Formats: sequence, structure tokens, C-alpha cells
Amino acid sequence: MVADRVTLCECFARDGLQHEPEFVPTDTKVSTVDSFVAAGFRRIEATSYSHPDRVPAFRDASELLAKVPRADGVAYKATCPNPRAVQRALADLDAGHGADELSLLVSATEAHTERNLRTTRARQWANVTEMARLAGGRFSLVGVISMALGCPFEGRVDPGLVAEDFGRFADLGVTLVTIGDTTGLGTPATVGPLFARLAAEYPDVPAVAHFHNTRGTALANCVAALDAGCRFFDSAFGGVGGHPAKIGYGTGMTGNTCTEDLVNLLETTGVATGLDLDLVLAASARCEQALGRPLHSMVARAGFGLLPEGVSL
Amino acid sequence: MVADRVTLCECFARDGLQHEPEFVPTDTKVSTVDSFVAAGFRRIEATSYSHPDRVPAFRDASELLAKVPRADGVAYKATCPNPRAVQRALADLDAGHGADELSLLVSATEAHTERNLRTTRARQWANVTEMARLAGGRFSLVGVISMALGCPFEGRVDPGLVAEDFGRFADLGVTLVTIGDTTGLGTPATVGPLFARLAAEYPDVPAVAHFHNTRGTALANCVAALDAGCRFFDSAFGGVGGHPAKIGYGTGMTGNTCTEDLVNLLETTGVATGLDLDLVLAASARCEQALGRPLHSMVARAGFGLLPEGVSL
Repeated sequence: MVADRVTLCECFARDGLQHEPEFVPTDTKVSTVDSFVAAGFRRIEATSYSHPDRVPAFRDASELLAKVPRADGVAYKATCPNPRAVQRALADLDAGHGADELSLLVSATEAHTERNLRTTRARQWANVTEMARLAGGRFSLVGVISMALGCPFEGRVDPGLVAEDFGRFADLGVTLVTIGDTTGLGTPATVGPLFARLAAEYPDVPAVAHFHNTRGTALANCVAALDAGCRFFDSAFGGVGGHPAKIGYGTGMTGNTCTEDLVNLLETTGVATGLDLDLVLAASARCEQALGRPLHSMVARAGFGLLPEGVSL
Repeated sequence: MVADRVTLCECFARDGLQHEPEFVPTDTKVSTVDSFVAAGFRRIEATSYSHPDRVPAFRDASELLAKVPRADGVAYKATCPNPRAVQRALADLDAGHGADELSLLVSATEAHTERNLRTTRARQWANVTEMARLAGGRFSLVGVISMALGCPFEGRVDPGLVAEDFGRFADLGVTLVTIGDTTGLGTPATVGPLFARLAAEYPDVPAVAHFHNTRGTALANCVAALDAGCRFFDSAFGGVGGHPAKIGYGTGMTGNTCTEDLVNLLETTGVATGLDLDLVLAASARCEQALGRPLHSMVARAGFGLLPEGVSL
């Protein structure tokens, strides 16, 4: 593992909060996003243009995007489930408070597509293609392939199929493709070869590691992805979220890769995140305050480990 | 990573329980050990011959060893802090209920030796040498090097010094040497090279990976050790314990590598543990019952991931 630099996308405000039973007030969300920007995050998953009745957690999508701090080099991502969502994203952009990135999702398996998206993969690809067309080059697009490392309904997922989906996203002009281990079924032995293959087949479109810690493997899988050349990671402060609300697949305590713990692992390994570590801990505290409970980060309790010379709090 | 076989030492009954504020009744401990034997564990850290006033959790060491099930190929380990402890171990052996393995500990740093053992490294090595002499070849001896991957007082630890300590243990005739990441300061980037070096320098004395999850890195570090050739791992059901009680070093929620989560990671990677996975989950439930609370395993909640053909619950 060589010293290098990686980019983390902070997903607390969207993937992290999607699960919360209580609506988190917009100003509270904004205060967490403020702390992410202050800590140096340059990619932030801010909200979702889901239908407000279906996912009320993000009924304030436009208001939130109007309130978050805008700074050079900070990109906000919003997830879009359908063409109507892209139209809302365009309206916000026209109103001067648009997202910078839109993410468009497919699932690698038919069974999960049916249960989660209530459609078929073929129809979802048509849907995604229409969304990309509507976006009209006015956003960076991020493809997402969920269940890319295994599915609770179909079991193993063919890496060749994931590579094909990756290529379809590349053909749609996306700038990144997110590899989702949606229910924590990936292992270093499957993550490493998949990321190596994608980097070899699509050298111009980086893969993003989006792992869930359902079985405790998130950090080990991040190391495998890093070793295979991955330089983009999704994570959420406190390890919250990481499992679509109200969808009854998978079991157990799921959660996103925990930002604090991933930052510690990377920085103590000599991989620069570009973040201010002191302000990472401040953001961690802000997120716990926002949700009113201790979250799942170990580093939030224990502090950072042995940092390289020149890196300090 | 190739398909292979590893040996896990289950540490719940000793390293796991050392932290518990309430004494766990001997019969409750025995019932957990029963479940470990049933699940197929062949190395079990059962108790400690610590002074009963100093570590009352193990005041029942002899009684416990008299009650645990004895089966061919099952080795019980007891920790010994001083020559008096070895004398107690010998008395139990003479009485027909001895431990099979004794572990003898040094710390890699002077500062930790002073705070934890209240002595110097030189005196502790004399102590360990005397214990090995007293044991008289009647037990398998397991050397332990704590703080081998970093120290909260001294920071980085020279791998050359760890290798020297390893060699001193080898000269004392130990069968294994445990590499302790006592406060979770190791990373895959330090674990991998250390284990590779030890395997190269001491091919006849296997190193044991004993990692604490203080900063969430335990499983990632286990993968690094495995990739470097390590085939012996310490873990505890529910990820409990892992931090000497009443010793005020380090901070945060520490814990041993979680057995259930490690077994899942290994088995889903195609590395055989020799365990019955159904009975691993039964032992997990037994441990939660013994402590009367949910413990820290993710797999205890989520279940095992995608097992290879031929491996099933």
C-alpha cells in the first residue's frame, strides 16, 4: 500500500439519515453539512429527490440545497430515483441552488430490483437512460450498482455482469460508478478482484467503494478496494444508515462504512484524505448531537491512532 | 488469498470476561466453554492464574478447570502473570485438571511495562524465564508480546524489537507467540510486514494474531495477517473484553476481535475454521445469555454471508 490520496464522499445527510424514524430538522441537517465542509469534505451526499410521501426524510430536499454553504470545490450529490426527480433537480439548478452531482441507481439482480424498485432491470436501465438524457449534461452523473457484491435473494453476483453495468453507465457519460455492497456480503477476496477488473476495463471512470458494515467487513473491504487501486470511498459519520428504509431485505444492524474509522485507517496508513482531523472529530460530535445519541464510531471514542509525521490534530 | 485452514483460540472466558464488573458464576462460564467445545474450538483461553484479590473475575480458576469438558484435541490455555501462578497451574495439573497451555506475557515498551506490570522489561523477561523454567516442559507455552503494534505512551514500536522478543520466546521453547495489538494501533500496513517478517525469521514458531478493535481495525488487520501467512487467531465471542481491567491506558470502547464476525469473514472467503457454523451461532447466543445483554457481533444479528459450496449452516 503506497502513500496516496483518496476522496471521501460524506453520506451522513442522505444515506445516513434515510433510516431515521424521526424527521431531522432542515437546519440541523445544514449544521452537519456545515461541519463536513469545514472538515474539508469535497463530495457530500446531501439529499434525495425521492417522492416526499415515499421518503419523508428528504421532503426538504430543495430547502436544504438552498441553505447548505457553497464553496469552490465542494460538490453536493442528490440521489434521483426517477425522471420526475431529475426535473426537480433541474428546477433547483435553475433557481440557483442545484446539486452538483446526481446519482442514478440500478441493482445488479432482478430479484432485488423487483423488491426494491418494483420494476425489472431492463425497465430500470430505460429509466436511468431517460434520467441521464433529461439531465442534459448540466450535472455530473454518478452511476450506482447496488448488490454488486452479493444479493440476499440471488446469492453470488457475477462480476462480469457488474462490469457490463459499469460499462453501460460509462456509455451514459457518468463521471463515477459506485459499487454498492448493499447488505455486506462482499469480502476482501471478492472486492479486490472486482475493483482491479473495473479499473483495468474502465481506466477513465473511477469506481467508488460504497460498503455497508452489515457483517463487520466494511473497513477490511475498503482496504481491499484501496489495494486494488480504488481512490473514491463513500462513508457516513457514526456509521449510520446504509439500508433503505422500509425495504424488508437483509437483516441485522446494518450501517454505512463509518467515516471517522475509515479516516483513521487511511491516515494512520499514510493515505491522505485531505481532511482536517480535528474538524473531523468536531463533525463527528455534531452528528451525534444532531441525532441525540452516541453513534457507532470507535474512533469517536478512542481518538485517532498513530498518525504519520507531519499529520496531526 | 488462498483457501486454507486456520485455528481460532476462543478468548471469551478469559480476555473477554476480565472486564466484567460483576463476577460471572463458574457454572455460567462452564456453560459457555461447553458451547465453544461443541462448536469445534480446539484452543480455548479458559482462565487466568492472576492473584484472586487483584483480578477477582478469575478467583475460580482451579474450579473452572476442574469443570470444563475434556476432549481429545481440545487445549485449554491459562494466563500466568508470575511464578506463583505457574505453581498453581502445576498443582492443578497434578490434581488432574490442569491447563494444557500457559501464556506468559511481556510488553514491547518500557512505559507500558511500568504502568501495567509495575516492573521493567528486563525484570519481566527474568520473570518469564523463571516461569518457563518452573513449567518444566509440562505445558505448551505461549509467549505474548503486548503493544507489539504501537503503544499509547511510546507511539510506534520498532518491529525489530518485536522480532527480538519473539526470538527470546522461541529460545524459551514456546510453541506459539501471540502478537498483541493491545490498544488497536496496528494497521494493515504495519500488521502485514510484521507477520511476514516473523514468519520468515521464525518459520518453526507460528505467530498468533491477537488484535483489539479499539479503532475498528481488527478484521482488516486479521486479513493483513492472514495474507502474510498467519494461521492462528485469537478472538472473543461478541467482541467483548480486550482491555485489562482497571489499567488506565488507552481510551474508548475497546474489544477483542469478534469471533462471529471473524469466522464469517474467514469462511465466506473460503478459509476453513473447522467450526460448525450453526453451533458458532448457538455459542454466540449462549455468551449473550451469560452476560445478559446483546454483545457487539454484527453477524450475530445479520447471520453469515455467502458461504462457499459445501459449507453450510
